Amino acid sequence: MSKKRRQERRVLTRLKRIGLQLCRSIEEGSFPELYIPSRSTTNIVYDARLRQYVLGKKKIRRSSRVVTHLRPLTQLLWIAQIAKQLIREGKSSTLRDIYYLSMAEEGVDFKSQRESDKTIADLEALLGAAREDFHIFPEERSAIFGDLTIEYTVPGYEGRQLNLTIHPDGVMIGPALATAEFVDTSAERVIAVEKGAMFTRFVEERVHERFRALIVHTAGQPPRATRLLLRRLNQELGLPVYIFTDADPWGMHIAMVIISGSAQSAHIPGLAVPDAQWCGVWASDIERYELPSERLTARDLKRVDELKRDPRYQRNPWKRELQVFTRKKRKTELEAFSRHGLTFIVDQYLPERLGL
Amino acid sequence: MSKKRRQERRVLTRLKRIGLQLCRSIEEGSFPELYIPSRSTTNIVYDARLRQYVLGKKKIRRSSRVVTHLRPLTQLLWIAQIAKQLIREGKSSTLRDIYYLSMAEEGVDFKSQRESDKTIADLEALLGAAREDFHIFPEERSAIFGDLTIEYTVPGYEGRQLNLTIHPDGVMIGPALATAEFVDTSAERVIAVEKGAMFTRFVEERVHERFRALIVHTAGQPPRATRLLLRRLNQELGLPVYIFTDADPWGMHIAMVIISGSAQSAHIPGLAVPDAQWCGVWASDIERYELPSERLTARDLKRVDELKRDPRYQRNPWKRELQVFTRKKRKTELEAFSRHGLTFIVDQYLPERLGL
Repeated sequence: MSKKRRQERRVLTRLKRIGLQLCRSIEEGSFPELYIPSRSTTNIVYDARLRQYVLGKKKIRRSSRVVTHLRPLTQLLWIAQIAKQLIREGKSSTLRDIYYLSMAEEGVDFKSQRESDKTIADLEALLGAAREDFHIFPEERSAIFGDLTIEYTVPGYEGRQLNLTIHPDGVMIGPALATAEFVDTSAERVIAVEKGAMFTRFVEERVHERFRALIVHTAGQPPRATRLLLRRLNQELGLPVYIFTDADPWGMHIAMVIISGSAQSAHIPGLAVPDAQWCGVWASDIERYELPSERLTARDLKRVDELKRDPRYQRNPWKRELQVFTRKKRKTELEAFSRHGLTFIVDQYLPERLGL
Repeated sequence: MSKKRRQERRVLTRLKRIGLQLCRSIEEGSFPELYIPSRSTTNIVYDARLRQYVLGKKKIRRSSRVVTHLRPLTQLLWIAQIAKQLIREGKSSTLRDIYYLSMAEEGVDFKSQRESDKTIADLEALLGAAREDFHIFPEERSAIFGDLTIEYTVPGYEGRQLNLTIHPDGVMIGPALATAEFVDTSAERVIAVEKGAMFTRFVEERVHERFRALIVHTAGQPPRATRLLLRRLNQELGLPVYIFTDADPWGMHIAMVIISGSAQSAHIPGLAVPDAQWCGVWASDIERYELPSERLTARDLKRVDELKRDPRYQRNPWKRELQVFTRKKRKTELEAFSRHGLTFIVDQYLPERLGL
């Protein structure tokens, strides 16, 4: 059975257990109720052992005995039923779809998409699974390229294999790739880059061959399906993951979220890649490589100060680079290496930073 | 020779001609000068025969005799030389890259990327070619799916073929796909959608088979490489192109730009798809299909008024739908059909709107 099928079975089993529990309450003549892990900020803790954000032990009770609980409880059960249906029918959807789908339903009146999104997150917390596991995917798409053969698990493509060097513009990471099995690879590492331009540069300069790497385009802050894929490449295939972002507080935080997760997704296990390494572009590279740079804006500097108070930023290179931002007040980006010619980043910078 | 090679040859020939002309002036002891088609708004006209925006006859002179012309003339020639180099070396780049690349050069000091972007547009106007023809690509990526076999022309992939049903998440439209040759297709039409979620829905519901269609995800306002691809599918393969966007003034304008080009790219021939049809979602569909909708904002209404004054919006369905916006003041989006179930849009709306 594929990893995807196993995870879907797990979700279906949990959904069934929740349903049975509620039915039993009704049969016993008592009011059905559920206990959902709390996603409030007071219940989000950084787990040093797992090296990622997780939820604490606090739970919230939703009981049909309490009139004000009836609405959110009904909404949660409706989403749970949709989740089951999506898995059963092998269809994918988005947060937006679910909101609209709810309008067809008598009595499930979400006031706005914000409310249905929140309820979907509640179901994630209740199931300990990501919404992608019950086929609710994000709109954004990122891409991957390199010598990895995958096998699809989506309907119509089950058992079909694809080598990810097939298309030099990169293979989209959508529902089908996110749920594929890994079959074979000659890669020894994964290089994740924030920018599409760099991704294309790396493919053209044959980084996948020269550095035996899989190249992943995160398209800014990567969608969760992409973070999950990076984690699987790291854990299932044992490949080290190197992350390259722009040298500004937003870029470094993209790397941090890949490595240790975000507070927003603290309720979902298995999204972080704790062993991934942030390799640049660092603020200190501006001087080291004589890169053109720009002044940090007031907004950038405020963000730098916020990150300085974050427990995950107390070690190097994070701490050191935040200090450089504060001292020099300059930022730069991946494309800035073009100052030394289009291929400098691949010929000089990459091997130096990867220690190859 | 491939279409791409032919176009590159054409660009190289023109570049050479420009170079020779300048050298000849110097040899004759006169000041070298160039006449560049003006891209100012007063020189942008809507060509009713070509059914797209084009430049008028006005040209601007850049002469080395005039001190204030020296800088822009030098910058233009530097970009021209980079264009030649990119084609010769088969490398791609972005607008941002070019700006940074210029920093390596003594004496070519662009004040900002805006200035280098402007100079690249000048070169486009001078050559009558899109910057993609000399390997300067946008950052954004859209995607395509369906039974079309292409043959790559990029280095390392020349002659290799790919059928675009290979990857159900969609095949990225980057530099490689944008320059590929069409080999074979069983498709009878092209369906372009603004949203990734709809693209995935269409693939899952086998729209490519049921409606014999190639499905293109424009990712909002499509990058020029995608508009070019839509045009080629229409003109080279004779496939009708149907466009589906959100029902708001921004969505309808996405369709309009695909069909008739934008003022911004009036200096580039061959980007418009004049025979493409905008098929919805229309403002009038909100009532017809009982779709959930939202109030148009003040910004939306201002945009509606602007479009009403645009000469291209004086025919139906454009004119009619603008009137509905003004009357009802409501907007909606593609996902809103989910109100009637996830597959309603494919089972009911698509065949009705395509007249199938």
